[in-house]
Amino acid sequence: MKTLRKKTSLVAILACVLAFIVTGALAADPLPAWNDGKARQSIVEFVQRVTTPGGKDFVPVPERIATFDNDGCLWAEQPMYFQALFVFDRIKTLSGQHPEWKTQEPFASVLKGDMKGALAGGEHALLEMVMATHAGMTTEAFEQIVSDWIATARHPVTKQPYTEMVYQPMLELLDYLRANDFKTFIVSGGGIEFMRPWAEKVYGIPPEQVIGSSIKTRFELFDGKPVLVRLPEINFIDDKAGKPVGIQQHIGRRPIFAAGNSDGDLQMLQWTTTGSGARFALLVHHTDAKREWAYDRTSHIGKLDKALDEAQAKSWTVVDMQQDWKRVFAFGN
Amino acid sequence: MKTLRKKTSLVAILACVLAFIVTGALAADPLPAWNDGKARQSIVEFVQRVTTPGGKDFVPVPERIATFDNDGCLWAEQPMYFQALFVFDRIKTLSGQHPEWKTQEPFASVLKGDMKGALAGGEHALLEMVMATHAGMTTEAFEQIVSDWIATARHPVTKQPYTEMVYQPMLELLDYLRANDFKTFIVSGGGIEFMRPWAEKVYGIPPEQVIGSSIKTRFELFDGKPVLVRLPEINFIDDKAGKPVGIQQHIGRRPIFAAGNSDGDLQMLQWTTTGSGARFALLVHHTDAKREWAYDRTSHIGKLDKALDEAQAKSWTVVDMQQDWKRVFAFGN
Repeated sequence: MKTLRKKTSLVAILACVLAFIVTGALAADPLPAWNDGKARQSIVEFVQRVTTPGGKDFVPVPERIATFDNDGCLWAEQPMYFQALFVFDRIKTLSGQHPEWKTQEPFASVLKGDMKGALAGGEHALLEMVMATHAGMTTEAFEQIVSDWIATARHPVTKQPYTEMVYQPMLELLDYLRANDFKTFIVSGGGIEFMRPWAEKVYGIPPEQVIGSSIKTRFELFDGKPVLVRLPEINFIDDKAGKPVGIQQHIGRRPIFAAGNSDGDLQMLQWTTTGSGARFALLVHHTDAKREWAYDRTSHIGKLDKALDEAQAKSWTVVDMQQDWKRVFAFGN
Repeated sequence: MKTLRKKTSLVAILACVLAFIVTGALAADPLPAWNDGKARQSIVEFVQRVTTPGGKDFVPVPERIATFDNDGCLWAEQPMYFQALFVFDRIKTLSGQHPEWKTQEPFASVLKGDMKGALAGGEHALLEMVMATHAGMTTEAFEQIVSDWIATARHPVTKQPYTEMVYQPMLELLDYLRANDFKTFIVSGGGIEFMRPWAEKVYGIPPEQVIGSSIKTRFELFDGKPVLVRLPEINFIDDKAGKPVGIQQHIGRRPIFAAGNSDGDLQMLQWTTTGSGARFALLVHHTDAKREWAYDRTSHIGKLDKALDEAQAKSWTVVDMQQDWKRVFAFGN
């Protein structure tokens, strides 16, 4: 009888330890870089609603799709989209093979360090620079180029690696959603193959869950070895009205949660919030000139105007970066 | 002491029961519809190689990507691609709204039940029929049309629902791969939005893991409500050299396992098998005129000629349906 009692109490102790661990895990704050305000509360409240079994807003796991813009939403986009900085770096690197670039715009301006001049030619000049740096190699060669660049390049202002210029609160939000069985996707105007090489390591988002703009590729046998060659021809622009199109193409069902930060995300948020059942839309509002940058309605990059009006009219969650975030960047700022 | 001994033996008994259950689970045949031949052995051997931790061919879970053709590989494709039969059914259904079809080819032939006549106009006629039945509605309306059709339509020969015309051994193979942490994808020349409404229920493959041919869509606000309208314009043909392109677009990494059944799958199998590390390619060879259909090098549908030669030259696994499959269809034939 005595032994049995000993055994019983051992089991009881183990049960207590287990209960403590489980309770501890549940109680641990999943969003420590977020201040306790309306934005954070609206997120937690939504996630609880859609994950409570038997609740009226319960959403089955396969339908828990969350989509995130990248530039200005998961990582910074100032003083210029990071992919544009990649383009400029590549032009400098490749200039040895292109002596004609010394006198040919927009390349000449880039080589002189005059970024404003480089962009003066508008969309046509930009496209020319993108094609000169993104096309004409195999998919595998391009992946290597991006991987090498992202491993060594530094942000012009903070001198941090670009992969440290990601928002700590958004990393926590991605983790929090995945811990609640959401499948997280990137839906960005940026290049799909520019993001894939590092998105899994940095965001925990695998290549098959990255959606972005793309150029065409062609399958070829090169010395009997199959390759995919990147062609200087636009395939798809995943921006504005293109975002719901890209979502349907890649995911095939409507997200129940979407996050963005600019007018380029408006249609994604409209598409997300007008499905049936519980829906959530979030806008990151860049209000923190001290820790990050402050810009919205008149900015050339990440313009947030119409989407801000619609967010206010429709009570979407607007994150005030200065108020709502305890910490901004992954590197600790 | 006596109590302790009793407890000990109870634990021992429980351990034995547990061991029995675990061993039983491991021993249970994951591929019961497959005969024990070279094809089955090559599959099991490959899966064991890539999933054995520490083994020289071990593949980390995120890279365990498996792609499957659909028509003739996961479900049957005779006497005609099932999507073509869907097109003919839709033309009949819609003919009331199109009195002009009574005299206008290829529609007139379809309405007379003359399928050969309907297809006599070649690719142009086919495209016209596809657009008349697949475009001009929202993505949600089309999903409903496909769901309704697949729930009620019957195969012209077996009189079974099309979702029963799937190959039992291939369903087992999908399950077996997923039990070994593979992510399974469809990569089909068929319409992506024709497969998505039923692929999850029938194959366990969610919409975001279905890759196929597509038409363009446009985002619109219709009475203030966002919709995606399906346009009568080809977006992407996911066949032959298009398959590796589609794989890169949607998955962004090369599969390590691919299965097909026709020359339309050749480039997918080439792309899959020429990556580094262990790779697996499978061809379903339709050799069973009694339980299914027998066709290969000269067939108009599912022509298997060049890919069969390459499979033999490169020792890919060729499944002889008659020899290798104990059972063919999900409905039990």
